[in-house]
Amino acid sequence: MNWKHIVVAGGGVLGSQIAFQSAYSGYDVTIWLRSEASIERARPKLERLKAIYLDTLEKMKTDPRAYARGLSDRTDLSDEEIDLLKEYVEEAYRHLHLTTSYEDAFSNADFVIETIAEDPEQKIAFYKKASQYLKDEAILATNSSTMLPSTFAPYTNRADKYLALHFANEIWRNNTAEVMGHEGTDQKAYDQVVEFAKSIHMVPLCLKKEQPGYILNSMLVPFLSAAEMLLATGVADAKTIDQTWMLGTGAPAGPFRILDIVGLTTAYNIVIMHPDAKNPETVQGKIANMLKSYIDEGKTGINAGEGFYKYK
Amino acid sequence: MNWKHIVVAGGGVLGSQIAFQSAYSGYDVTIWLRSEASIERARPKLERLKAIYLDTLEKMKTDPRAYARGLSDRTDLSDEEIDLLKEYVEEAYRHLHLTTSYEDAFSNADFVIETIAEDPEQKIAFYKKASQYLKDEAILATNSSTMLPSTFAPYTNRADKYLALHFANEIWRNNTAEVMGHEGTDQKAYDQVVEFAKSIHMVPLCLKKEQPGYILNSMLVPFLSAAEMLLATGVADAKTIDQTWMLGTGAPAGPFRILDIVGLTTAYNIVIMHPDAKNPETVQGKIANMLKSYIDEGKTGINAGEGFYKYK
Repeated sequence: MNWKHIVVAGGGVLGSQIAFQSAYSGYDVTIWLRSEASIERARPKLERLKAIYLDTLEKMKTDPRAYARGLSDRTDLSDEEIDLLKEYVEEAYRHLHLTTSYEDAFSNADFVIETIAEDPEQKIAFYKKASQYLKDEAILATNSSTMLPSTFAPYTNRADKYLALHFANEIWRNNTAEVMGHEGTDQKAYDQVVEFAKSIHMVPLCLKKEQPGYILNSMLVPFLSAAEMLLATGVADAKTIDQTWMLGTGAPAGPFRILDIVGLTTAYNIVIMHPDAKNPETVQGKIANMLKSYIDEGKTGINAGEGFYKYK
Repeated sequence: MNWKHIVVAGGGVLGSQIAFQSAYSGYDVTIWLRSEASIERARPKLERLKAIYLDTLEKMKTDPRAYARGLSDRTDLSDEEIDLLKEYVEEAYRHLHLTTSYEDAFSNADFVIETIAEDPEQKIAFYKKASQYLKDEAILATNSSTMLPSTFAPYTNRADKYLALHFANEIWRNNTAEVMGHEGTDQKAYDQVVEFAKSIHMVPLCLKKEQPGYILNSMLVPFLSAAEMLLATGVADAKTIDQTWMLGTGAPAGPFRILDIVGLTTAYNIVIMHPDAKNPETVQGKIANMLKSYIDEGKTGINAGEGFYKYK
């Protein structure tokens, strides 16, 4: 793999993080955005990431707990080495190229990561257009959390070089990348993407076949649903349930602490997809109502300062 | 709560641990067993527990990682204080009373914890007989993992003083006690059992109503099933799935490490209760076959030296 030009399509929460992390790791990165307005919205996100990266690195000089796995494989960096990494952060920020031009973005790309809205129509339109500009050998990945690459492969004009590369939020700390092909993905393209993930300090987590929810959410969703059921049906309170999980498994956080991080709105959107959720007598209906009562009070999780727990 | 005489019915893995822990905590403890043969089987378990308690306490003098939450609330014990606790261990062992006599065991009991086989018929026969000897005010609890107190309450002659008190294996380290009443359980009896749990260095985890699987297994079973599904359907290997869970949630162990501790036979017995498990084309059938192939090779988990991982 001798990729140089990486393109991230979309500048949202994850898109900006993937772009910044790739630039920090030495790639020549372009962020493709739909409009000038999108460019204006992306810039402060990148500035914030620069500040977080610099701040985290500086803290790593004195506090071992500040160590972020995505910033370096090593935990024993000297102050001089950290200062060098801070220069990489500055350089990454300076060199990030933002554009609305398909030709500018895609004609020279070795690898494209699509992070646009979770809307099939928008994704299909994007793939159809962008693929016209891509080199034959360019590899294309989606960061979609909820959709499968097989859904979009036919529109990419390179089904064998198309797959999913799924990042976690706060990529510089939570440095996992789930790699998932569809049936037609070429093994060589898959392996190149695994190498790319490693090269930007990610731990690649390899799926051998398509799976909705990848690996993590395939376990997290039923686990969190079970916890929501216990609370919504009045078996125990959130604190007791969390304490049980932590004492029983040694985990640092229980399900309701995790739900506060995921966000209660996301949890609500998952449960209302269940056909039973409209009936308040069913377990799913009780879970939906329980979550809605928190959301209606503005208690949507850690970002709001309160969810199942208070954070301020 | 001024209980003095505690009776544990049954001397199996958990029964012997509950009895030993209660005696260590200062109670006058009797183990009731069905036969002289049961007494002979229980004695080496108690000897082993004495050795483990003494050994753990001795290690706590020099190694902070040896600390077991059930042995003391404090992590900063002096050597002299630890030596005193070791005397309690010796004393607990010396004073444990084993008997096959109902009258001897139950006529003086303040609190009885039933830990006999998970067989409804045996439990009912035991409750009918033992309750004839109990004082009116005696409280009765079951440690059953899989059955509900409401099933047995009618046979206890004290439905309002009957509930579940569910311990985890290796009680001296995993010091949780799930407390679960049935609809007819008196709140005062419930509160007394919570106090008792605290008095033997357990963290009481309070359920407000009956729930099969209590709190922990209500979450653990769907979580482990989801992980088994990913492996059995070929989405990813056990090590990748564990790594994903650990990196994604910060947990010290992933689902297959936990399954090795639970034991693959227990996991198998859970999955084959599912009606689909007989059909090898279904997900449950694939999980059953996957687990069976490990069990057939003797890889039943950590106690066998190998499960999903090797331990020797």
